[in-house]
Amino acid sequence: MATVKMVEYDDATGDVKQIFDEIMKLREIDFVPNVWKTLAVHPPTLRRLWDGLREVMAPGRLDTLTKEMIAIAVSATNGCEYCLWSHTAAARKQGLDDEMLGELMAVVGMFNQTNRLTQGYQVEVDPQYRQSG
Amino acid sequence: MATVKMVEYDDATGDVKQIFDEIMKLREIDFVPNVWKTLAVHPPTLRRLWDGLREVMAPGRLDTLTKEMIAIAVSATNGCEYCLWSHTAAARKQGLDDEMLGELMAVVGMFNQTNRLTQGYQVEVDPQYRQSG
Amino acid sequence: MATVKMVEYDDATGDVKQIFDEIMKLREIDFVPNVWKTLAVHPPTLRRLWDGLREVMAPGRLDTLTKEMIAIAVSATNGCEYCLWSHTAAARKQGLDDEMLGELMAVVGMFNQTNRLTQGYQVEVDPQYRQSG
Amino acid sequence: MATVKMVEYDDATGDVKQIFDEIMKLREIDFVPNVWKTLAVHPPTLRRLWDGLREVMAPGRLDTLTKEMIAIAVSATNGCEYCLWSHTAAARKQGLDDEMLGELMAVVGMFNQTNRLTQGYQVEVDPQYRQSG
Amino acid sequence: MATVKMVEYDDATGDVKQIFDEIMKLREIDFVPNVWKTLAVHPPTLRRLWDGLREVMAPGRLDTLTKEMIAIAVSATNGCEYCLWSHTAAARKQGLDDEMLGELMAVVGMFNQTNRLTQGYQVEVDPQYRQSG
Amino acid sequence: MATVKMVEYDDATGDVKQIFDEIMKLREIDFVPNVWKTLAVHPPTLRRLWDGLREVMAPGRLDTLTKEMIAIAVSATNGCEYCLWSHTAAARKQGLDDEMLGELMAVVGMFNQTNRLTQGYQVEVDPQYRQSG
Repeated sequence: MATVKMVEYDDATGDVKQIFDEIMKLREIDFVPNVWKTLAVHPPTLRRLWDGLREVMAPGRLDTLTKEMIAIAVSATNGCEYCLWSHTAAARKQGLDDEMLGELMAVVGMFNQTNRLTQGYQVEVDPQYRQSG
Repeated sequence: MATVKMVEYDDATGDVKQIFDEIMKLREIDFVPNVWKTLAVHPPTLRRLWDGLREVMAPGRLDTLTKEMIAIAVSATNGCEYCLWSHTAAARKQGLDDEMLGELMAVVGMFNQTNRLTQGYQVEVDPQYRQSG
Repeated sequence: MATVKMVEYDDATGDVKQIFDEIMKLREIDFVPNVWKTLAVHPPTLRRLWDGLREVMAPGRLDTLTKEMIAIAVSATNGCEYCLWSHTAAARKQGLDDEMLGELMAVVGMFNQTNRLTQGYQVEVDPQYRQSG
Repeated sequence: MATVKMVEYDDATGDVKQIFDEIMKLREIDFVPNVWKTLAVHPPTLRRLWDGLREVMAPGRLDTLTKEMIAIAVSATNGCEYCLWSHTAAARKQGLDDEMLGELMAVVGMFNQTNRLTQGYQVEVDPQYRQSG
Repeated sequence: MATVKMVEYDDATGDVKQIFDEIMKLREIDFVPNVWKTLAVHPPTLRRLWDGLREVMAPGRLDTLTKEMIAIAVSATNGCEYCLWSHTAAARKQGLDDEMLGELMAVVGMFNQTNRLTQGYQVEVDPQYRQSG
Repeated sequence: MATVKMVEYDDATGDVKQIFDEIMKLREIDFVPNVWKTLAVHPPTLRRLWDGLREVMAPGRLDTLTKEMIAIAVSATNGCEYCLWSHTAAARKQGLDDEMLGELMAVVGMFNQTNRLTQGYQVEVDPQYRQSG
């Protein structure tokens, strides 16, 4: 369910069907997640997001598990329900266990605290930090 | 500068002075950053934050550089100016280079995009993801 | 349901009842939405919000559909569940179709991405842009 | 400075000039703050905001200092620079001292931390809490 | 339910069991709230959060009800579902009634509005406010 | 200035130089904005963002000025300084005047208020709105 009528796999054609197949193959899942069935309502956005996501999540200087942990950190900070369930599941497939998730969340919680304290007091940036740019 | 009068090193005494010394020693810097001089206005918060931060940032299942990258991801998502300058500097000391930062920011940008799209359409969580909890 | 006991139509009197009637008439609906039944717990806030909303949403230099799309953009960026369901329904009444919603969401997603990238890198405002103020 | 050309006091006429005078009198200041000079670019918004603000900030069941502290808590959580400087100044006029501000910020920091931890883990609301609504 | 398997009271041992008992005693409730059963997955975070929370919420220059109202203000601004249900329940125990909650929410709503207007126009901080720091 | 050393036009080569030229030509400006000089530190992100932005901002069912107004609405809600200055300048080129910006900001402010009130009270979505999806 979503604020638009999602495109079901059996109704997908052309580029949309191809992307749905790629998603299930690459993610090794046997269903099309709701987020992709929703984005399919606007095919150019589906295409741009799917291509962009694969490019960004490919292992590079950071490995895929690190990237999934960053996805969780961003989603927790934004309070995105769907994203937290789907990325926590994805990270577990990459090897994340409860202790690692516990450390990740501890860091996420801590910096949400210090971010708002620092902004709350309007602390001026030290010139020593600015020189590093 | 901050919305309170910061505690300068020369005016610090007791627990505050001790924490200031620990900060400079542990971080290997020769100045007390403004955020700590500001938090010192309320000593119990200074103590709780400093102890909490050391505990959270200590290497465990995640290494310190990974934790600093998560700090940057959270700070970017919250738009915290001070935090971004200080944590980017800290991460560089731990070995972060421009290419790694580029990958980190690409992930942060991507998930800020998909978080808001997913929430914008109010996509329902797939039961397959909920089972993973 | 809400964290307060909502005021039902049959229990409404005076100013609250009058506003409930205005809402149903102006919106051409046969029920009082939960958000208004909730705000009715504090009548001065109900009055101020209802009057403010009508003033702000009246067609002016921007038409009502454009204003409803902006409401959706803000609500997506804030992740407000109720607001997204109610404003998407309202925008559809004004003529929003799936393709327009798709373009709207694409823009919302893109700028949530670029906002956080720009803040993440702490990019300095170009003097050429500041002169425009 | 702002992204629009602010209305200076000497150029203000009619309703705008009257509101500027009310602001300086009520706040006991001898200048028109930039935020009001900016809002004056769109007089109906200036009028609605000024009337709304006076209504909301008037002492009721909560006193004015408590309301100013809530304004600081919201502004810290949103990272609003202007708002933090202006409301911290306003709260000091109402008697806020550094120790009270320290306690306020400690609470603001703590709940920004726990909010994001709770959302990060997607903790389900206990039925006992829902019954309280 | 959460993205991790919560620690139930009957499975808790050692420090976790002791904290669970403290929570029920101090809060005068006969169940362990889900948020604490979730945090228990990572015992050092459970310990740090519980100790920190008790320290921050203890009556000092601000009383406990004022602190609970600030918790609600922060949670509303962050859109944290769990936090709003639990802290509204906690504040009611401290004496919060619907009229006080109505005033609190009116202030929270107003400053979320003015925060974003002030940032939206990029209003420059008046030098008079900066001097107050 | 940014937390990375920006790529200046004279140092740009290959794909980066080509994108810099495209930006200046398409935007009809004679300088490369800092945000693009910063993104150029990670060329794949520069390319993906630039291609994505042109695709998303092209006139379709929504015209370019409407899209720029949505960009301002999102940036105001996120408090992005750079984005507000650059997109307000861009919208003015497309015909935005102070009165239109005033209406836009009034809508942005109003829904930041109602979003947080609705979340603050945890108002349940009316079934009538859910049926519209």
